[in-house]
Amino acid sequence: MMENLQNQLVAWRRDFHKYPELGFLEMRTASIVADTLEKLGFELLLGKEVMKPDSCMGKPGMDKTRSHLEWARANGAIEKYLPHFEDGYTAVVGVLDSNTPGPTVAYRVDMDALPISESESDAHLPNHRGFRSSNNNMHACGHDVHTSIGLGLATLISENKENIRGRIKLIFQPAEEGARGAKSMVDAGVVDDVDYFIASHIGLGVPFNQFIASNNGFLASSKLDVKFTGVSSHAGAHPEEGKNAMLAAVTAVSNLHSIPRHADGVTRVNVGELHSGSGRNIIPGTAELKMELRGETTELNEYMKNYAEEIIRGAALMHQIDYNIDTVGEAIGAEGSPELADILKQCADKSGMISQSQTNSIKASEDATYFIDAVQKRRGYATYCVFGTDLAAGHHNEKFDIHEDSMMSAVQVLFETAKALTHE
Amino acid sequence: MMENLQNQLVAWRRDFHKYPELGFLEMRTASIVADTLEKLGFELLLGKEVMKPDSCMGKPGMDKTRSHLEWARANGAIEKYLPHFEDGYTAVVGVLDSNTPGPTVAYRVDMDALPISESESDAHLPNHRGFRSSNNNMHACGHDVHTSIGLGLATLISENKENIRGRIKLIFQPAEEGARGAKSMVDAGVVDDVDYFIASHIGLGVPFNQFIASNNGFLASSKLDVKFTGVSSHAGAHPEEGKNAMLAAVTAVSNLHSIPRHADGVTRVNVGELHSGSGRNIIPGTAELKMELRGETTELNEYMKNYAEEIIRGAALMHQIDYNIDTVGEAIGAEGSPELADILKQCADKSGMISQSQTNSIKASEDATYFIDAVQKRRGYATYCVFGTDLAAGHHNEKFDIHEDSMMSAVQVLFETAKALTHE
Amino acid sequence: MMENLQNQLVAWRRDFHKYPELGFLEMRTASIVADTLEKLGFELLLGKEVMKPDSCMGKPGMDKTRSHLEWARANGAIEKYLPHFEDGYTAVVGVLDSNTPGPTVAYRVDMDALPISESESDAHLPNHRGFRSSNNNMHACGHDVHTSIGLGLATLISENKENIRGRIKLIFQPAEEGARGAKSMVDAGVVDDVDYFIASHIGLGVPFNQFIASNNGFLASSKLDVKFTGVSSHAGAHPEEGKNAMLAAVTAVSNLHSIPRHADGVTRVNVGELHSGSGRNIIPGTAELKMELRGETTELNEYMKNYAEEIIRGAALMHQIDYNIDTVGEAIGAEGSPELADILKQCADKSGMISQSQTNSIKASEDATYFIDAVQKRRGYATYCVFGTDLAAGHHNEKFDIHEDSMMSAVQVLFETAKALTHE
Amino acid sequence: MMENLQNQLVAWRRDFHKYPELGFLEMRTASIVADTLEKLGFELLLGKEVMKPDSCMGKPGMDKTRSHLEWARANGAIEKYLPHFEDGYTAVVGVLDSNTPGPTVAYRVDMDALPISESESDAHLPNHRGFRSSNNNMHACGHDVHTSIGLGLATLISENKENIRGRIKLIFQPAEEGARGAKSMVDAGVVDDVDYFIASHIGLGVPFNQFIASNNGFLASSKLDVKFTGVSSHAGAHPEEGKNAMLAAVTAVSNLHSIPRHADGVTRVNVGELHSGSGRNIIPGTAELKMELRGETTELNEYMKNYAEEIIRGAALMHQIDYNIDTVGEAIGAEGSPELADILKQCADKSGMISQSQTNSIKASEDATYFIDAVQKRRGYATYCVFGTDLAAGHHNEKFDIHEDSMMSAVQVLFETAKALTHE
Repeated sequence: MMENLQNQLVAWRRDFHKYPELGFLEMRTASIVADTLEKLGFELLLGKEVMKPDSCMGKPGMDKTRSHLEWARANGAIEKYLPHFEDGYTAVVGVLDSNTPGPTVAYRVDMDALPISESESDAHLPNHRGFRSSNNNMHACGHDVHTSIGLGLATLISENKENIRGRIKLIFQPAEEGARGAKSMVDAGVVDDVDYFIASHIGLGVPFNQFIASNNGFLASSKLDVKFTGVSSHAGAHPEEGKNAMLAAVTAVSNLHSIPRHADGVTRVNVGELHSGSGRNIIPGTAELKMELRGETTELNEYMKNYAEEIIRGAALMHQIDYNIDTVGEAIGAEGSPELADILKQCADKSGMISQSQTNSIKASEDATYFIDAVQKRRGYATYCVFGTDLAAGHHNEKFDIHEDSMMSAVQVLFETAKALTHE
Repeated sequence: MMENLQNQLVAWRRDFHKYPELGFLEMRTASIVADTLEKLGFELLLGKEVMKPDSCMGKPGMDKTRSHLEWARANGAIEKYLPHFEDGYTAVVGVLDSNTPGPTVAYRVDMDALPISESESDAHLPNHRGFRSSNNNMHACGHDVHTSIGLGLATLISENKENIRGRIKLIFQPAEEGARGAKSMVDAGVVDDVDYFIASHIGLGVPFNQFIASNNGFLASSKLDVKFTGVSSHAGAHPEEGKNAMLAAVTAVSNLHSIPRHADGVTRVNVGELHSGSGRNIIPGTAELKMELRGETTELNEYMKNYAEEIIRGAALMHQIDYNIDTVGEAIGAEGSPELADILKQCADKSGMISQSQTNSIKASEDATYFIDAVQKRRGYATYCVFGTDLAAGHHNEKFDIHEDSMMSAVQVLFETAKALTHE
Repeated sequence: MMENLQNQLVAWRRDFHKYPELGFLEMRTASIVADTLEKLGFELLLGKEVMKPDSCMGKPGMDKTRSHLEWARANGAIEKYLPHFEDGYTAVVGVLDSNTPGPTVAYRVDMDALPISESESDAHLPNHRGFRSSNNNMHACGHDVHTSIGLGLATLISENKENIRGRIKLIFQPAEEGARGAKSMVDAGVVDDVDYFIASHIGLGVPFNQFIASNNGFLASSKLDVKFTGVSSHAGAHPEEGKNAMLAAVTAVSNLHSIPRHADGVTRVNVGELHSGSGRNIIPGTAELKMELRGETTELNEYMKNYAEEIIRGAALMHQIDYNIDTVGEAIGAEGSPELADILKQCADKSGMISQSQTNSIKASEDATYFIDAVQKRRGYATYCVFGTDLAAGHHNEKFDIHEDSMMSAVQVLFETAKALTHE
Repeated sequence: MMENLQNQLVAWRRDFHKYPELGFLEMRTASIVADTLEKLGFELLLGKEVMKPDSCMGKPGMDKTRSHLEWARANGAIEKYLPHFEDGYTAVVGVLDSNTPGPTVAYRVDMDALPISESESDAHLPNHRGFRSSNNNMHACGHDVHTSIGLGLATLISENKENIRGRIKLIFQPAEEGARGAKSMVDAGVVDDVDYFIASHIGLGVPFNQFIASNNGFLASSKLDVKFTGVSSHAGAHPEEGKNAMLAAVTAVSNLHSIPRHADGVTRVNVGELHSGSGRNIIPGTAELKMELRGETTELNEYMKNYAEEIIRGAALMHQIDYNIDTVGEAIGAEGSPELADILKQCADKSGMISQSQTNSIKASEDATYFIDAVQKRRGYATYCVFGTDLAAGHHNEKFDIHEDSMMSAVQVLFETAKALTHE
């Protein structure tokens, strides 16, 4: 049976890898997830049942959503589920209730890909083996793997239903990239009944067969799109008639980098993109920034975000122009519950992995922190664990690839935690 | 005969209008000009015979040039002349030598269009009458008109050869937009034998049937493309590993605007476009500026350009990154020769136009100033005259259009000057 | 008689030169002026009678004013007049009414010195001849000369009363330096009854015995003191607790220099001084700017001032700090009345000076423009004339000195205008 | 005896407190220290014997030094020693050699005061008790206390000579404030023979009777004075003739704050003071910055300093002006030797203090780190310990004051370490 599952995991992963979908557009992926879970006996909660629309951040417009729907239809999406997903609300939650007393244990995986063109090198295994991306996006962070692990876990749980007490909740989240999707699921109440919550990630620099029970290094982060709108004019004939949006933008950029360091810990600011102007001899009437703030804690990120907003406002006023700040992604800080991390570590040890309780060294941002925070706030336990693997190239690289043998171990460890946690 | 010419002018203009070509790509236009001039008995000088390659500024790359060649072939270019133009050297000079003693009189018109999408409004006459641009460019500044006037002038001169002494030189210049083409013709020696030089423009805010014999308000100008090249890195994990090109760019922009005003006259600076960065969470490794400087005199423009180069260099050093400055266009300052302007004014008066000797009020830049300066330096006389017309919308607007009756008057006035100047 | 006056002019000038007083502190000077005018039969209007307190700009505080009062008392001020001047309202207006019908003709001179230490070089004539400044200020702009000319003119008018019709008004203005005093006199109504107004200046680059009847080159100007007030904190331990006033100030400075040039004419901006911070390791809690704006017209100066205020406000908001803008001086633009300039030119020609109707080339600011504007608004005539002289060093230089023979010519020309204007 | 010493400590401290001397000017203090040590039987090393002149940073000029010499003479300095100190090399090292085999144990205290005006409040004990500063400086950091503790330790060692083996070296350092004096002593070889090194500080937020055996939280730091030198010109008449040093300075300030955060740890930058310009209407020809960089390690501080130098250079080039960077203070990072800290902790415990091995929480900079680093590099042991006290107000505050009872405990603990270390 385990060999079958191993093969199935590879099949799922390669299929998802070949048909990557960006955040809030995971229609094909979600339809396959829903179909699989339903067949395994899980009760389904789909789309807006588990997502609060107002809490979605950086969601693509309806044009893009509709045109992707056509793509999904043409590329193997299961039609039956599409009505739930067609507006871009693509979350899937599968619930298996043992109808026995016991805790609710939730597992969260993410499903979205990145806007990266996958390598066409023959040395890139997915290309060589024929499951390279069929479009311009790419699973360059491993969410295809996560989705497959989630389905693998569903399979083991379904096959071992009798060993489970309480309830199992499998959360398939859209739009983790850019920290855009988790908050909408939390705000929809998805973890309001959860006692134990486990999110997981593959890779992140952890070697094959190693395991981190709790990654505590996440930086809280806000992703902002800023638009300055001034007035264009002819730069030679009437410079004074313009309201120069570029001047506001460059003033904002230089001051954003000047936000004071903070005694309480690590902070970050980056303006990753700046685009302004429409012609050499035109006073630029618009300027757009794509930026992000980060902080070692939620409070430090708030400090950065609040200060950034003042800077943007001041820069606009200075040149008498309008501005708009759009929060297109956000993650908070979080630390795993040590008690739960201990249980995970034991399960991993039992499965023969080389495990470690916690690390602070992986400095990235993740919106799973919303789930963790919500569960801990209601006195549940939550953690974010990492399954090591050998990487062909780093995350977000066009040659990113994992060792597929890592998936089975992850499924097994997670299944062990399900048993351990529901039998307490 | 004049009625025929009037019809012919309209036919030429509408044809050129329908097939607009950008600077250094005027292959179809130039081939028709060359063919017409040859048939009228002019000796031809083509392409590199009248353009110094090194002096071309902002010339498109060979890919773009080749693909335009295909377009030109498919849209009516006269194959016979294309070998001269296929590398993007698209100037045409037609010479008619009377073989009698007398001065050399040169007329310069320009042929290039703008990268503007022409209006599809039914109220836009070129659309209504079916000669709207057939591609994404547009003759929105009137160079289609100028080229037609040049051919009209050639026609009258050819038909009245016996009235001409000395030599007539008709200069059809590529790439006036962005001030990119004139210098290469001057540096190739095109006006080294010229005693009188007349450039002309339609419109510029001057009303129908009015005439300015000398527009002296041109600002010298330099058009620069600046590229800053730093090093990208992950903004959360390793901000210190990047070399932030955006920081260099914003520092340059704010300091460029701080170049001190100058006691000697008007100066201008504009950074019309700024594009930097490749992703929100990436320290931006590149930044590109499209900018221009202007000055009331050549010296004031030099002051601005020199200061700008220091600022750009300092900004790059500050953040330890590389930079490149590319001069993609340049015009100098110039004043018309009053003696020649007087002659033009008399010819216009004779033709029934309401004329004026000179103006300083049209603040724009023009690379015809290179011709003017070169002719005056060898003690010739030169001027830049303006033929008024009624405009449907301003220059460079998608609804720009002229009153076609203005063309015949312009041809006649210019022809009068040819007679007047060669009979002195 | 004229020789006596010549000697008297030199005596006055050297006395005023030796006892220079800064703007709004001209107590000794004003008391001598008042005493002289009274003895010559002029009716006196003193201090607040001819100054509106609210319109004084950049007036020193009461401490400084009181302590200067002691200095004035100890250095020859005439006690009788001090009660009028002791609060720093130091203007003097002398009126001589012929009690015959006729126009009111006003002459304005200024009395204040500069905070410059006078040269102690033996090659500096005032030092060599023993009338070098007795304190740390200096008449380095010639206002000692202007005051003396005013008194010389009073003498001639008094001695030739019978030749005068209408009324003569001699205006001795405080605080011209920094453009601080004129507005308060205009707002007090000093020229509300004036038909002809003549302000004059010595030097300004005009050679000895030459005369400019109307200097039209004045730039309107606003002088601003800006203070940013943030919060200090320890830069190592708690950078985030500060509100960095220096960051606001540097952002303001760089953006102030970026105010767009204006198509309508010359503009200027200068931040002449910036002082910020109290210690190397302290986040700077305060920053102060001394700055000025200028424009070729009153409107252009307003454009600059309004934009500057937005920039300062935006910079403060950006770093969440307070700011204060204090207008400590202001001058408007003005052009002399050509009709009056013609009369002045004729008077100068008659006196043997080499004269010129007008110039635009002296680019400075002067608050006499408030008088000119007010007189012209009520349909009077006004002008600002310049008497040439040979300068030992430029204005505001520690070695500034004039040729004393220039004074007598100035007195004579002005007296001629008095006769000419009141006899029309 | 101990009561006598307690009284003597208070007497010393109050005397030093009343006569505070700034860094490199501690002539009176050093002469009293030298005299006391000599009388207690210590061999003296004075001035340049223990300071390398080239390594002194931010040393006052000779004028200031000479005039302070007069002050010292007039205020109780012991003439005999002044020849060693009169050029501002004010270090004192006292050596007591037991002439028995054993290690060399060094203690370092600092002697300099701060340019702060001491409070005149009656609630400020030094004022109330009559030992408030007699000049404009103040011992607001406790170095008067440190010097007294050093002399107290000398007293106990001298009285207990027979209990000491090896050699004791008492280091009285000048100019710790601004991190200016230690390097010159290290470079002069003062600790080249030292096996154990103990620096100590009073207060720093540690409560009365508590003790930190090793403070490891020091930030490496560089203190820079930057001067930009451009060219002044009249801002109205000839803005283009200036080279605006203020524009370079503000560009430097805003970019200095933009130096990227570093993944390896805490960094800091502060421009504490900026002074530029000489008059409102003058293009500012000079600008001066007082700034500091810090880093959690020596390497991080170097990263900041190197980047800062590039920014300053680039800013100067940008506006074509000169610049000068003067390092006026510098401290490196350091961590105490745990083995030595353990010994200190035991001694403190024995003396009844509440002790703690180490802390990282005191984020300041100290040039004792040069001693620590030098000793550890030659395989000796070094630490920086803190004696708690109750503070009336924070360090560097005008009301700073300590609990004088803390001194005796400090002397006893340090004496215990001398015994413990030399008897190993």
